[in-house]
Amino acid sequence: MAILKIEHIGIAIQPNQENIEIFNKLLSQTPYKAEIVESEGVKTTFFQVGESKIELLEATQSQSPIAKFLEKRGGGIHHIALEVDSLEQEIQRLQSLGFELINPEPKKGADNKLIVFLHPKSTANVLVELCQSTTPLENKK
Amino acid sequence: MAILKIEHIGIAIQPNQENIEIFNKLLSQTPYKAEIVESEGVKTTFFQVGESKIELLEATQSQSPIAKFLEKRGGGIHHIALEVDSLEQEIQRLQSLGFELINPEPKKGADNKLIVFLHPKSTANVLVELCQSTTPLENKK
Repeated sequence: MAILKIEHIGIAIQPNQENIEIFNKLLSQTPYKAEIVESEGVKTTFFQVGESKIELLEATQSQSPIAKFLEKRGGGIHHIALEVDSLEQEIQRLQSLGFELINPEPKKGADNKLIVFLHPKSTANVLVELCQSTTPLENKK
Repeated sequence: MAILKIEHIGIAIQPNQENIEIFNKLLSQTPYKAEIVESEGVKTTFFQVGESKIELLEATQSQSPIAKFLEKRGGGIHHIALEVDSLEQEIQRLQSLGFELINPEPKKGADNKLIVFLHPKSTANVLVELCQSTTPLENKK
């Protein structure tokens, strides 16, 4: 199957240490990584839970999509990311079925991934990211 | 570790076959199960993705929490569920850290689970379900 797993769940949080600590306590662990993704205007903080990750998202720019989401909702679950084996093949398959992409070309996401987002209007109001690892499988932890 | 994995992601949908079909197409599969949970006033439809599930939620009663969510948001990601090895121990641990439960006593959820929900006000606006399987491990698929 071309969709391998739920790679992560993206959660938008107001940028304060207290919110990171909520997840430290909830998940009984500290984040394994934090990374700024300039192209998206976000700081990402990662926790590993089973085969998936919880990705906390803080806006680093007022024009970031996360800043807009926080303004509207005050934080919460923002998107789900599905890991695929071939982003190119999945994009082709899903477009042929009528799904729309937000960004037509894959771009570099956090955590060594190539990503695209499907438009929520074609996915029942759910923001879905598709991602493919750019790290060879044998080097993955 | 007491939190084992992301058991499922709950997605609220308007009750029509078209919405189920969006996920059939997106995930390249048909649901492995549908189940009505009377206590919650929902019909649940399950897809397996890696070790986790996507759980679609339709309201079966106008007073169901899902009906209220749909009224407010028109559908979308509703909650994340973390599978734990001992619900009793995790409840004790999280309450001692200041987390609040919506329902103080575990109740029967879909797919042979005992569940509780943490109040979003103590989890950065994220509705988090904790669940423990009531099926012996050796019988799990």
